[in-house]
Amino acid sequence: MNRFRPLGIAVVGTGRMGADHVRRIDRVISGARVTAVVDIDAERAEAVAAGVDGCTAHTDPAAAMAAADVDAVLVASPGPAHEAALLTAFEHDLPVLCEKPLTPDAASALRVMEAEAALGHRRVQVGFMRRYDTEYVRLKALLETGRLGRPLMLHNRHRNVASPPFFTSSMLISDSVAHEVDATRWLLGHEITAVTVLRPTRSAGAPEGLRDPQFVVLETDGGALSDVEIFVNCGFGYQVQAEVVCELGTARIGDGHALVTTMAGRWGGTVAQDWTERFAQAYDDEVQAWVDTTRRGEVTGPSTWDGYAAAAVCEAGVRALEDGRRVAVDLVERPPLYR
Amino acid sequence: MNRFRPLGIAVVGTGRMGADHVRRIDRVISGARVTAVVDIDAERAEAVAAGVDGCTAHTDPAAAMAAADVDAVLVASPGPAHEAALLTAFEHDLPVLCEKPLTPDAASALRVMEAEAALGHRRVQVGFMRRYDTEYVRLKALLETGRLGRPLMLHNRHRNVASPPFFTSSMLISDSVAHEVDATRWLLGHEITAVTVLRPTRSAGAPEGLRDPQFVVLETDGGALSDVEIFVNCGFGYQVQAEVVCELGTARIGDGHALVTTMAGRWGGTVAQDWTERFAQAYDDEVQAWVDTTRRGEVTGPSTWDGYAAAAVCEAGVRALEDGRRVAVDLVERPPLYR
Amino acid sequence: MNRFRPLGIAVVGTGRMGADHVRRIDRVISGARVTAVVDIDAERAEAVAAGVDGCTAHTDPAAAMAAADVDAVLVASPGPAHEAALLTAFEHDLPVLCEKPLTPDAASALRVMEAEAALGHRRVQVGFMRRYDTEYVRLKALLETGRLGRPLMLHNRHRNVASPPFFTSSMLISDSVAHEVDATRWLLGHEITAVTVLRPTRSAGAPEGLRDPQFVVLETDGGALSDVEIFVNCGFGYQVQAEVVCELGTARIGDGHALVTTMAGRWGGTVAQDWTERFAQAYDDEVQAWVDTTRRGEVTGPSTWDGYAAAAVCEAGVRALEDGRRVAVDLVERPPLYR
Amino acid sequence: MNRFRPLGIAVVGTGRMGADHVRRIDRVISGARVTAVVDIDAERAEAVAAGVDGCTAHTDPAAAMAAADVDAVLVASPGPAHEAALLTAFEHDLPVLCEKPLTPDAASALRVMEAEAALGHRRVQVGFMRRYDTEYVRLKALLETGRLGRPLMLHNRHRNVASPPFFTSSMLISDSVAHEVDATRWLLGHEITAVTVLRPTRSAGAPEGLRDPQFVVLETDGGALSDVEIFVNCGFGYQVQAEVVCELGTARIGDGHALVTTMAGRWGGTVAQDWTERFAQAYDDEVQAWVDTTRRGEVTGPSTWDGYAAAAVCEAGVRALEDGRRVAVDLVERPPLYR
Repeated sequence: MNRFRPLGIAVVGTGRMGADHVRRIDRVISGARVTAVVDIDAERAEAVAAGVDGCTAHTDPAAAMAAADVDAVLVASPGPAHEAALLTAFEHDLPVLCEKPLTPDAASALRVMEAEAALGHRRVQVGFMRRYDTEYVRLKALLETGRLGRPLMLHNRHRNVASPPFFTSSMLISDSVAHEVDATRWLLGHEITAVTVLRPTRSAGAPEGLRDPQFVVLETDGGALSDVEIFVNCGFGYQVQAEVVCELGTARIGDGHALVTTMAGRWGGTVAQDWTERFAQAYDDEVQAWVDTTRRGEVTGPSTWDGYAAAAVCEAGVRALEDGRRVAVDLVERPPLYR
Repeated sequence: MNRFRPLGIAVVGTGRMGADHVRRIDRVISGARVTAVVDIDAERAEAVAAGVDGCTAHTDPAAAMAAADVDAVLVASPGPAHEAALLTAFEHDLPVLCEKPLTPDAASALRVMEAEAALGHRRVQVGFMRRYDTEYVRLKALLETGRLGRPLMLHNRHRNVASPPFFTSSMLISDSVAHEVDATRWLLGHEITAVTVLRPTRSAGAPEGLRDPQFVVLETDGGALSDVEIFVNCGFGYQVQAEVVCELGTARIGDGHALVTTMAGRWGGTVAQDWTERFAQAYDDEVQAWVDTTRRGEVTGPSTWDGYAAAAVCEAGVRALEDGRRVAVDLVERPPLYR
Repeated sequence: MNRFRPLGIAVVGTGRMGADHVRRIDRVISGARVTAVVDIDAERAEAVAAGVDGCTAHTDPAAAMAAADVDAVLVASPGPAHEAALLTAFEHDLPVLCEKPLTPDAASALRVMEAEAALGHRRVQVGFMRRYDTEYVRLKALLETGRLGRPLMLHNRHRNVASPPFFTSSMLISDSVAHEVDATRWLLGHEITAVTVLRPTRSAGAPEGLRDPQFVVLETDGGALSDVEIFVNCGFGYQVQAEVVCELGTARIGDGHALVTTMAGRWGGTVAQDWTERFAQAYDDEVQAWVDTTRRGEVTGPSTWDGYAAAAVCEAGVRALEDGRRVAVDLVERPPLYR
Repeated sequence: MNRFRPLGIAVVGTGRMGADHVRRIDRVISGARVTAVVDIDAERAEAVAAGVDGCTAHTDPAAAMAAADVDAVLVASPGPAHEAALLTAFEHDLPVLCEKPLTPDAASALRVMEAEAALGHRRVQVGFMRRYDTEYVRLKALLETGRLGRPLMLHNRHRNVASPPFFTSSMLISDSVAHEVDATRWLLGHEITAVTVLRPTRSAGAPEGLRDPQFVVLETDGGALSDVEIFVNCGFGYQVQAEVVCELGTARIGDGHALVTTMAGRWGGTVAQDWTERFAQAYDDEVQAWVDTTRRGEVTGPSTWDGYAAAAVCEAGVRALEDGRRVAVDLVERPPLYR
């Protein structure tokens, strides 16, 4: 693959998640473009393709994957359609980012795994996106240093404002707790060996018939225990929290202040060491905003007037430092262009 | 400008900041590419250009700006070189993102402003990147709702681990406090009318001759007061904090837990309302990681085995929910490909 | 009982806990004094009594309780001795503060309860002291307002630096989790109907043979679930945390910032409304320190010099306010008495 | 003085503060009793004295101080009356706790100081009660370890919900900032050498004519700078915050999570090491509650039923631990006495 050429991606499925990925690749991601979209709803596929330069619309994944400008596939169709899409991608030996779940049940997942193993190399990245969240990444990195000792317990909280209308009691496990299942396996490096689900009082806020909240206990082959509060109609907000309790301390994320550790008589977190760490996002957003407005022929953001005013104030400030007294700032009248 | 064509950018100055912007546009920013770099050091320009597809190297900004594939200019050269670069860009009527300071003094800034005003339209976005930081953006948005009443005071803290060797006492004002000067003007919507600089004890950690820390008081034409602690050799970390005290409450950023407000007998912050808010960065990073590894011919991240294991655990979990008892999880042996 | 006369208390048991209660009643508590101490170790009883004015030493609880100046009994002997002490107190119809556990098993506790019920009125306050902790009290009060809706789950963490040498695996339940058993019953107002104990990996920090940590699930007749992490050799500190998850929000204590609630899209806590709330403890400690030092014939704390210096600075401050400029402070030379 | 005899205290002034001190000494403080109260309003003095056993009422401080059962004096009258009360106490060589301010101006404070110096020993403790607040005490102790290096700056915030009707602009300095004046001197160990008062926009919430908020800068002979935001009509709550910026780190109090330090790349606080630290207040409150209710002939708090229920649950818990399964809890019917 030409390292300079953008990666051509076929997005399979253009529902909420698929359409969001199309937007992301088109507007946010560097080095890639959407060259094809696939949906059984041809109209929806056409509508999405129309917004992206050089993007074709398809109803058949195989047709899209056969296109010359398709280098990789992003599968965002409903779970039951994943197996077929994955097997087709394997036929073309295309790399795939497959939204979770890989497939809806273990038997089909096993078939996919056997097909990939037959290729002899990995082709699939599954969409367990918590592994890419900054806080989870830092938590994992901390655990790997071994400074906290071995993990003994993992306490998870997973709360949603409200569940969608089609949600069933078992989807709290298969759709929601699925994230904690992967997070548990990934953070601890253990396989899960048994599951228990406890059922506290149903919240008055849960739709009729929905067993919400639930409390899940996961046992692992490493001996660590992982418990999950899943509460999908908590009403107050979306919260995903995790605390790992290790032999020498604990580490917690999701409370709104990054990674907090408790160890050796102290609790706390780290302080950034420079601006590239503290303001990385701001620099990226600044330049992206400039590129986006410039492509639209607009100029926004801090103006020349702002630059001038800052220069005038700093000049006065330097004099104030040198003279040890209050220095007044004199600005010219603000030109009409900057009002 | 073709909305589908990437924006061609000439980056003027390839020192630490310029090179970082080249990397950013090449790897992170969507919809743009670096088509030219400029540096008085020809070798450095060549070296940077070599890493970017279709990028030319120049020693003269004017030559770069005259190139057909240059649509916009990013100025990251030293401050004294900004005026000439900006005036040249104005000759070509090119949009410019100019790193702060606009120019090193008020007189030259005024000349630039007059030249832009003569064009009759804005061409410059100045690089006051705090205006793009999520926390500052939220603070500004909160102030604009008026829910806290009018701002009365702004307390700023700006701390660096250590200052670079060339730093002088007046650079604490013109280089560092310059950020708070703009943040004060932007957050409060007031112009600054006077400056006082107080000089507490020099820290033993400050290089000889450097007056560090300093405490700056900015008065504004809106009557609000802004004070700035600037301490560029604090040793422990990089911290940028701001607290706006308003008639009805306060709002604070930079403490490591996003925006914290105090109002009507309560302190606290907001809880995300859904995963698109809480995990926006994780989704972007996930897809960018997939695109980057795929372009390198690699497959990383959660594997098909992880997808299979999650499916098997969730199946067991659903049975555990239905049966009200502990259910063991059975996994096939892990294939060699996934070990 | 004369409302002006101090309450005369017999303390039964003068081990670590009993001796601490003697100190507390003698030095901290208002309106009470220790008139008798009891210990099977006569020497220890004598030693403790010697430090308290008008306190007699006994080896037999019955003898102490028969004394004329004994109005009430504090039982702090080992658990197995509680039943006999309580029954003796009932014979004298004396009020009792009985350290937890009431008795070591349900059968003996039942006998005590039947004896008290035969008296026809309550005589015993059991030493579940979490009900008196400011944070627990606030949590309970918040739950009772009903603003969070019904409680669904209670997550408890109970961590000790290290367990004493005699600690056994079952004592993690009967000695440590006993606190969470009472806290669960008290906070939720439910009785506990079933217990499950899960056993994660033993920590390398646990003494040989000790099953530490454990994870306990308590089911209640109100349908709420209470889980308890008990980890008595965590090494890093003593932590007692509780989070109640209700239908409309959560409330958490023990994290080092008082009661934190999450509700309706916001997390946070309350701000004190005046100094009697914020500084109540400081006023008490100030006066107690003055009483204690004065009784020892000493004078400490802020001196007349401190009062004078504050007056001089405030005078200068008022002039600075009126004149709008910096005002120097002139102090007389500090007299030798205040150096 | 007999170390066993309670200290007999005359309280001079029975307004809000004086009456609160009478209550405190009578109900909270150990080892002291109020033997006399003084007020120019004879009726108010009588009313307060009536509530305290063996307490006499006076209108003349000298008469009270001459009484045989008066060992010490607490001065809580208005500031202008302090000088006379203190000089009278010096005549009787009595120890005094004098509410702040010592006296309302520097000249009178100087006279008091000279009179005490003439006695040859200290008799006065001034009521700067922040020195007794747990957070301030910890902050001071931390500074004294030297671990943070020398203090360079102290940032103070002092906010009240609303000022009383009689408050004037200069009282923001002499009544409110007076606390920060003492805290600055005490924490830093420096004398204050100059004061500047800045006047931001008046808050719309301030009563007409009141200059509120103000921003005060205190310079010290040690070179450290102390700034104070004073805002006595902030509306939202009572907040007293302080941050000391030292050469090697910062330490902050008043944010609702005890003492938070930032040093060497980390921010955070300490974790209690055992229950005597974490629950000291709970034990004191538990025993005080028991003493108070017992003196009133009442029994409250955790009952024998609570003790029995805990014993039964723990018994089941120990079986659950041993058997590795869920164990149901069987309770007897709750007797009427405990319903």
